[in-house]
Formats: sequence, C-alpha cells, structure tokens
Amino acid sequence: MISNAFTIGVDLGGTNLRIAAYAQESGLLETIQLSTRLADGRDAVAADMCQAIRRLLDRYSRERSLTGIGIGSPGPLELPAGRLRQPPNLPGWDGFELRATIERALDRPVLVENDANVAALAECIVGKGRTLGVDSLCMLTLGTGVGGGIILHGKIWDGMSGMAGEVGHLNIWTDGVACGCGGHGCLEAYASATAVRRMAEEMIAREQAPGLAALQASNPRFTARDVSELAQTGDLHARRIFADVGRALGIGLASLVNLLNLPLYVVGGGLANAWTLFSRSLFEELRHRSYVYRLTDLGEDRVVDSSPGNTHVVPAQLGPDAGLLGACLLPFTAALSKV
Amino acid sequence: MISNAFTIGVDLGGTNLRIAAYAQESGLLETIQLSTRLADGRDAVAADMCQAIRRLLDRYSRERSLTGIGIGSPGPLELPAGRLRQPPNLPGWDGFELRATIERALDRPVLVENDANVAALAECIVGKGRTLGVDSLCMLTLGTGVGGGIILHGKIWDGMSGMAGEVGHLNIWTDGVACGCGGHGCLEAYASATAVRRMAEEMIAREQAPGLAALQASNPRFTARDVSELAQTGDLHARRIFADVGRALGIGLASLVNLLNLPLYVVGGGLANAWTLFSRSLFEELRHRSYVYRLTDLGEDRVVDSSPGNTHVVPAQLGPDAGLLGACLLPFTAALSKV
Repeated sequence: MISNAFTIGVDLGGTNLRIAAYAQESGLLETIQLSTRLADGRDAVAADMCQAIRRLLDRYSRERSLTGIGIGSPGPLELPAGRLRQPPNLPGWDGFELRATIERALDRPVLVENDANVAALAECIVGKGRTLGVDSLCMLTLGTGVGGGIILHGKIWDGMSGMAGEVGHLNIWTDGVACGCGGHGCLEAYASATAVRRMAEEMIAREQAPGLAALQASNPRFTARDVSELAQTGDLHARRIFADVGRALGIGLASLVNLLNLPLYVVGGGLANAWTLFSRSLFEELRHRSYVYRLTDLGEDRVVDSSPGNTHVVPAQLGPDAGLLGACLLPFTAALSKV
Repeated sequence: MISNAFTIGVDLGGTNLRIAAYAQESGLLETIQLSTRLADGRDAVAADMCQAIRRLLDRYSRERSLTGIGIGSPGPLELPAGRLRQPPNLPGWDGFELRATIERALDRPVLVENDANVAALAECIVGKGRTLGVDSLCMLTLGTGVGGGIILHGKIWDGMSGMAGEVGHLNIWTDGVACGCGGHGCLEAYASATAVRRMAEEMIAREQAPGLAALQASNPRFTARDVSELAQTGDLHARRIFADVGRALGIGLASLVNLLNLPLYVVGGGLANAWTLFSRSLFEELRHRSYVYRLTDLGEDRVVDSSPGNTHVVPAQLGPDAGLLGACLLPFTAALSKV
C-alpha cells in the first residue's frame, strides 16, 4: 500500500525562496522557485510564500492528505515561537513573527525551523544517515557562513529556544580573527566560503601567492570555488588555504566528537565540494585532538561500514536540495527538544 | 503513600570506593566507605564492591523492593557493555569488563555509567536542575581533571558508545599546553586542580610571584586549594591564575552554549569552590564569544529565575556526594541514547 500523505516544505534563503510538495514514496512532487524579494520587505516575501503554498495545496490536497507544512529559515530563530532574532542574512527581519504570520495567512499550523537544522534532518533521514543506518548525526554546512544541526534519534535537537547546533561558532583560534557573531576565532571565520576568500586576499596582500594574485587580477570578484579550482591545479598557496580549512574543521570536529560521541558527522554546503583538498588535515587534527575519535575510529577502509561504535566523518550525500528536503520532512518528525 | 523502592549506588574512584543504599523519599539510607585497593588489582576491588552491595541488599531488601544497582566509574567506558578503555585513573584496568564482572558475581543486572555523567544526573534530578525547574543541563566537574556530563530531558546523553560529555577536552587554546588526552590546549589543561598547580609553578619559575613562591617554600606539595586561599587574601598572582581558569571556562562554555542551547550549565568539583575568583572572567568570555548566550541572558539578578529561555551558568548545588547520589539515581532513569 502506498501512503497518500504529502507535505509542503519551504526553503527561505536570502536569495532564493523555494516551495515544494513532497511525498515519502516519490520524493519532491513539484518545486516552485522564486527570488526572495528582500527589497520589498518581509510582508511581500511572506505573501509570495503563502501564494506558492496555496498553489501546491490546491494541486495536491485533492488526491493526497496533507501531513503538515515545514519552513526552513535563516536564524537565529526563537522556537517554538518561530520568531526571528537579528538574522544577519535577512536584514530588517529582527523580531518578525514568521510562524504566526504564515499561520494567520494560511489559517493552518506550520512548523518553522532553522535552515541548517532541516538540512541536517534531511541528511539523517534520506541522506548519509540512511546510507549508514544511523539515526543521529551532526551536520556542518560550509557556505557563506558555517551552519550546523544536531539530530538525535531522528529528531532535531533545538535546545531550549531553537538556537542549538551553532557549530559555526565553536572556538578554533581563541585570539583569532573577528567573527560576524561578535566573538573571535570561530569555526565560521576559518571554514566558510567567506573565510577562504579572506585568506586568499591576505596571502595576496603579503605578496606571497602569484597564482592567487593572478586569479584576483583576472577576476577581482573571485570566489571560494575559484580558489578551490586553482588548488586542484596544484597551486601551493591555494592548497595551503584548504589545508587550513581542514585544520579548523578538524579542531572543531574534535570538540564535537569529544562532546557528543555521535556515530556520524556530515560536512555539507558548497565548500564541501573541496573535500579532497581539506580532508587530510581535517583527519590529522581530529586524530590528534580527540581521544574519543581515536577510540572509535575503525579505519578509513570501513567508512561505509555502519558497524556500531564507528565514528564516521564524511561529506554530505545530498546537494543544495538538503534544506528544501528537510523542510518537507519536518512535518513527518516532531521536535525532540522543548526543554 | 510512601514508595518502598530503593536502589544501591556505587561511586568507584581511584582513591575511595563508596557504596550506598538510597530511597527517593529519604535520600541516602546508608553509606559504606572503603579505600579502593588498586594495588591489589581490579578483582580485589570488584570483590570489595560486591561484598558491600550484598551487605546493603541483605539489610534493605526485606522491607523494600530493589529498583536496581548503579555504578559510577572513571572512564573512558564503553557502554552499554560497561567495559573500561585505558582509564587514566585506574591503571591496569584497560579492557576490564566491569559490568559483566559485577553482574556475574551478584547474579543480577547492574547499570554502569561514567562518574561525571552520574554526577550530572544527580545535579539535574536533586540539585540545581530541580531548584531551577529544568530537566536538561551540562555539568562541568573541575577536579584533578575536568569531567562532564550532558543530561537531556532527565536522562544521560551517552552518545553511541558511552563516551559523550567529555567537556574537559573542548578546544580552548589550540596551540596550548599538552593535555593528558594526547591533544593540546584542552579545557582540562586550564581549568583543573592540576592546571592551577602547574600555572602556579610556571609563575614561580618566572620569579614573578612572591606570594606563590612563599607558599611553595612553606609547602612544596601545595594544592589548588592553597592557591585559592592565597587568592582570597588578595595575592595578585594567585588571583590572576583563577582569572585564567575563568577565562578558559568561559571560552569552553561559549562553545557549549552555542552548540547545545541548554537552560543550565553547572560548574562543580572541588575547584568550583573558587567560583567567586573565576566567575567574572568566565562571564566576560562567555558574553563575548556566545551570541546564543547574549540572546538568552536574562541578567544575573534573575539567576534563580527559571523563566523559559534563560541560560543559567551557576555553581553546583551538590557537593562531593553528587557522584554517589547519581549512581543511586541511575536505576530510576534509563539511558536516553543508545544510538
């Protein structure tokens, strides 16, 4: 028997707004992709979101029954209220009652979650977690910033007010560079796309990096991806930047492994495409700094082995759809943690 | 109606071995305190433990019904097997099947847990957690080393193999001093009694600390407690050591708060008696480094306020009995996490 349940998921980003209908046996039934009209204000964006949700409801709720609607939003986000708190990627949205606004407009309950948390949920349920047969993981999403999410027994660990999982602000280099969060030396300042570009600019400024300087000369708006492509050609300075990214990730992962002792840590986001460039230094630091890792490392040759007791640190399986899929999966789970 | 249930708890330490009978309405009914006969080998210690357990069983199981037996042991400990893995404080016990050995000797099931985890459980159920009305916390135990435990919804978070909660090995000063775990710059190397003594010796060696030098001259085996008493008299160098302890704790707590978003973080262990000496720098670092803390800090004047959304960072309520109490409480709970 095929279930006729479906959900609607929303991936609210600073650039794109995607809304999808999802069924467990079929995956994404339909995806609506819009631009996030930030310049027109949050009410305009909320109206776009509701219009798309209604369109999918009209189309699918005749033959299927709706399990629920999930929204993944940039944080910080107060849960379960679904209220935004000074979100750096949604300027002007501070205090916005996202959940209440959408519920009022649709006259239906909706679930709101942090975008990095729903991406982690998707990796757990339909990504690497499923592949390895485990139901708990921590995901690190390396994008413009570094987001994260913790899944315990198949459910998002929200903490007491929705702000758990901020792996991007683990301490790496205590007296290091200033971070957007107000602190110093956070993982985000060393392992994000923004950090890669900054490190490249610093190397160029020290006039020690001809390959990077040439890249900047040909393309002043070069990105982390450009730096990774340069590294793939063998450029030593570009390679050193990714070795430093891996080092920061290994230091952060050591804290995570010592603290959480989970079976799986997944590295996703655009920068995770550079896995082969940073994984060596990542594992060097992780082995050095985490005795829990050393006691639970069954060896790289068994990385797809889900034998109990093995700590897996692997690239994400799902691509840029992880956040949208996670929003769709959210109604099928319930938040574990309302402390 | 008064429940007639009771439990037996064991606090196995490198120096002392304590075994107690416990009832929820009365607390500790009776405590047997022994020396841990490490020199005679693990089988002798296990025999002492079983003999004391049998004595308490004989005495209390006529009028009460036994809920279970809980043992708190130094780690690392593989769970649920209850097998020791290279425990630094129990030399020669590597691979010892603690749980199986005791179960065989008693012909009864027993629960084995990490000692820092059971102390955290006690703080949650009958200590600061009860006082503040929350059921989740992270405890940091500052002793010879720095132990820790995470309690989620009233149950110990063990991780996949019993090794979760190792807050002593969070990254603080990445290129800092070597830690007993094999890494560098861990919290334990800056916020344990051992670390306080080392920092005092370093200050004396630099000939910058007349008060500490006088302490060492009068008592070459001075302890962290002696340093804290000197600090209480106003000695600037001794005070600076505790400011550094607080700084390390604040850096570690910032990572914890950003990651877990729990309502309560408890600082216990002998060194926590120096709370007033280190709390100022602790909160300075925590505020600086954790935006989750800043978003959830309702102010020090409300530190006993359990209003939802407040992050509490406070000294432990229970004293040295926390581990023994937690072992007694263990049978009343069940481990949340068998990933």
